[in-house]
Amino acid sequence: MARWDPGAEERLKRAALELYLEQGYDNVTVTQIAERAGLTRRSYFRYFPDKREVLFAGSERLPPALAEAVRTADPDTAPLTAALDALARVGARLVEHADGAKERRTVIDASPELQERERTKAAAITAAIRDALKQRHVDAGTADLIAQLATMAFHNAFQRWIEAKGRAPFPNCLDAVTDELRAALGGT
Amino acid sequence: MARWDPGAEERLKRAALELYLEQGYDNVTVTQIAERAGLTRRSYFRYFPDKREVLFAGSERLPPALAEAVRTADPDTAPLTAALDALARVGARLVEHADGAKERRTVIDASPELQERERTKAAAITAAIRDALKQRHVDAGTADLIAQLATMAFHNAFQRWIEAKGRAPFPNCLDAVTDELRAALGGT
Repeated sequence: MARWDPGAEERLKRAALELYLEQGYDNVTVTQIAERAGLTRRSYFRYFPDKREVLFAGSERLPPALAEAVRTADPDTAPLTAALDALARVGARLVEHADGAKERRTVIDASPELQERERTKAAAITAAIRDALKQRHVDAGTADLIAQLATMAFHNAFQRWIEAKGRAPFPNCLDAVTDELRAALGGT
Repeated sequence: MARWDPGAEERLKRAALELYLEQGYDNVTVTQIAERAGLTRRSYFRYFPDKREVLFAGSERLPPALAEAVRTADPDTAPLTAALDALARVGARLVEHADGAKERRTVIDASPELQERERTKAAAITAAIRDALKQRHVDAGTADLIAQLATMAFHNAFQRWIEAKGRAPFPNCLDAVTDELRAALGGT
């Protein structure tokens, strides 16, 4: 096999998702994933460090992209607006490459181990937004609370986007979630 | 050593917290904790399944207590209010037994593994509130969003309560966080 194989990563992701759906995450081995993708186990580990990360490929780019978007927002924008605008922009790009998002959701929802990893990824997003807000001179306590709220809205908006099967643009999903949160807090 | 030792669990919790602070969570063994508490390693495992759970003792009682409080709230109460009232009541009882909360926070903040466990515990709280709201005929999507918002407020209120060093009652901390969230959403 050629060392340089531009389709390999995508094939591995697709193979993993298929196998996790068919057999359950816990029952699948890296060897099986590699075989289905026409690769070796050793090749697998050139792309992903473990069995979980194949489902979170590219997620390491989200926190820095969001931080950059928050930092460069109009200085007069309110902190939560800056965070939500950043999430809307980055999220709109993200969903363009979110093939298999629904299947991925099904796999994660069935595995406490994957849910754990997903929460760790969400915490990294919160930390990136919080630190970027602090650079905009938002005080630490407020920055932390707003970053948590924005991450929560993002996660739920992505879920809505999946459920809408591509019929609703991501920013609209995020607006809908934000409106619901506002309505809930207005009702207390 | 007598088999029945009513102070053993408290001594183990205290010993673990001390050792984690002194030496770092990763560097401490169960044997060390047991020895400092004047117990055997075997005794330790009668109380806690692993090295992490000693820091989360009693946390398994929170989700059912919250679910019960949400279910029994006045039927006319808005969903988020029902959730926040439940959290205020259960939280006020919780902080009466929260000795060492600040030290515990320091230990958790220094360990990704412990943060992971803490997020899993938070997810169990969210699930309990969500299910209790659904039993109050709140639709599934709203119940989920409100449960996440309430859990987030709870977590932050507990943090504020620790920082206030007992000078602010827990329900006041929760109100303050809720007000800030409302203000943040009002400003978007």
